[in-house]
Amino acid sequence: MVDYVVYGRGSFNQLDEILASQRKDGAPMIFLLDHFFENKSLASRIPLHGNDKIIIADVTYEPKTTYVDKIAADLKNEFGKVSGIIGIGGGSTLDLAKAVSLMMNNPGSSADYQGWDLVKYPGVYKAGIPTLSGTGAEVSRTTVLTGPTKKLGMNSDFTPFNQIVLDPELTSNAPVNQRFYTGMDCYIHCIESLQGTYLNEFSKSYGEKALELCQKVFVEKNVWDDESDDALMMASFAGGMSIAYSQVGVAHAVSYGLSYLLGTKHGIGNCIVFDKLEEYYPDGVYEFKKMVEKNKIDIPQHITKGLSDEQFDTMINVSLGMKPLWENALGKDWEKTMTREKLRKLYEQL
Amino acid sequence: MVDYVVYGRGSFNQLDEILASQRKDGAPMIFLLDHFFENKSLASRIPLHGNDKIIIADVTYEPKTTYVDKIAADLKNEFGKVSGIIGIGGGSTLDLAKAVSLMMNNPGSSADYQGWDLVKYPGVYKAGIPTLSGTGAEVSRTTVLTGPTKKLGMNSDFTPFNQIVLDPELTSNAPVNQRFYTGMDCYIHCIESLQGTYLNEFSKSYGEKALELCQKVFVEKNVWDDESDDALMMASFAGGMSIAYSQVGVAHAVSYGLSYLLGTKHGIGNCIVFDKLEEYYPDGVYEFKKMVEKNKIDIPQHITKGLSDEQFDTMINVSLGMKPLWENALGKDWEKTMTREKLRKLYEQL
Repeated sequence: MVDYVVYGRGSFNQLDEILASQRKDGAPMIFLLDHFFENKSLASRIPLHGNDKIIIADVTYEPKTTYVDKIAADLKNEFGKVSGIIGIGGGSTLDLAKAVSLMMNNPGSSADYQGWDLVKYPGVYKAGIPTLSGTGAEVSRTTVLTGPTKKLGMNSDFTPFNQIVLDPELTSNAPVNQRFYTGMDCYIHCIESLQGTYLNEFSKSYGEKALELCQKVFVEKNVWDDESDDALMMASFAGGMSIAYSQVGVAHAVSYGLSYLLGTKHGIGNCIVFDKLEEYYPDGVYEFKKMVEKNKIDIPQHITKGLSDEQFDTMINVSLGMKPLWENALGKDWEKTMTREKLRKLYEQL
Repeated sequence: MVDYVVYGRGSFNQLDEILASQRKDGAPMIFLLDHFFENKSLASRIPLHGNDKIIIADVTYEPKTTYVDKIAADLKNEFGKVSGIIGIGGGSTLDLAKAVSLMMNNPGSSADYQGWDLVKYPGVYKAGIPTLSGTGAEVSRTTVLTGPTKKLGMNSDFTPFNQIVLDPELTSNAPVNQRFYTGMDCYIHCIESLQGTYLNEFSKSYGEKALELCQKVFVEKNVWDDESDDALMMASFAGGMSIAYSQVGVAHAVSYGLSYLLGTKHGIGNCIVFDKLEEYYPDGVYEFKKMVEKNKIDIPQHITKGLSDEQFDTMINVSLGMKPLWENALGKDWEKTMTREKLRKLYEQL
């Protein structure tokens, strides 16, 4: 689990104090700031000392192993050692921060560690400050990365942040569409966890609470206000805890294929897929469609139209490689249910 | 936060594997086992190696600072260093384990550290395995101790366990009365947290979920079964998280006085007090009385009858010393509301 959690409106103002005890002589704090905030006021609120550095994280695409490796190599060249890596942004920025922290202390390429429990050494101190709610990246033990052969995270006990700062004020200016897609990432985490075969009372409690908060925000309430930001930030945390103790399911397994091939971003990719999953999650998909309508969102259609057989095969290979996700969703005999043919038909619907 | 959480029926069987990576050459694992389990089968399931030692924790009374100091001193004399302290039992045993772990690495007496953020150094590795659900001791950053001048915990960032193992099977043989009183500790945590002035969305989410689970177990269900054990163990965890991010209130502040003077155990003491708190928590007390009736529990009455003025003053002093609890319950101006006279009347009712 994350070592330290601070939650509260305005808690970003405590960042300087929080980081003070983690600073090592001459070694800077490195702030990876989501490019969304370049030249915005949040950038000027970052508490810089000495040779601290802000790196604008280019998250036009979700993090690639090559990008992680480059940032870590540049930091080693410039500073030798750093005191810590602080990620401020959406899920991509948080995952990037976790991965860079790990690569400051582990040899080779981050692509070598895509998988489960391959990371050898703890990373440098790392803190995460989400500015979008829903991904669960603030609590997860993974960092989703696109590598040369797969889209898969560095899942390990060393991956979670040492510190997270959950300040709902930071999410108040998120673009409406992005906020919806990312919020749905959380909603889908809950559905996949609660209907999965890996469920236990621990993940169930977190999943139910997160689901309730998502419903409050996207189904019950008619305006977006501070309460919405507060609730969705907590939903993201609880949804992340739920999947950390169970697993995600069909929507994530299929959307990983999409994003590997087409670069579809995680939040919107999940929505595109979940929209077609009545067969697996009938109640969840019904409610999802209501939320889409109520919040006046357009879910892109026909994004796989015109792809070649080879391209479909690539997506199918990436997706079927996510064995724990399929097992959680469909049980131990999932390979009998989810054949390549069936998955191809599903991709063709998207 | 606790570093590692394992939840699941039968997860106690993973203890050997969990501890393996924490063992240091020649330094034993010390298991503090609640005296309730002496000569019971759980004792024989503890994975002993080399010079590992089981210490039967005498929790007839709640842990005293003198008892903590004695165990730590004896361990230093016998072994020099230990690999870790593993507490297996109810809240008293868990708190004892946390305190002994800290006193293996901190000079002086545990009484020196009763308060907030006084502990200087991290303790040795410590793990907690609850066998009763409700106290929240498995996740708290305190260890409630009775010292020479106060009943107060070693509240610090070093206090939480490194590892907890939540195995609901271990709670299945708890005596019915004890199970109820300890379960009500959790229920009362939720009410005090949810109605407190320190509440935020983080503690609220945990408090609401824990409350819902308590209600399921003690109000809705008519038989005690595995599902009850599963739910109450999760309720305890969530209730503990809720108060960790807010604070407890009137029932705890008053019951600390009782237990300091009379040795009343925490669970039953909270019930004795909460039973008379309609003025502060009307809905919670109403539901509490229904649960008492449904579960056929007798709450002791007139336990303060015949006490001297001096004894009442002692309880009042201990209770009014718990400033953060009163502030959470009654707001910043709590001292105007809760006068010594008013508190005396409350104690006389118990």
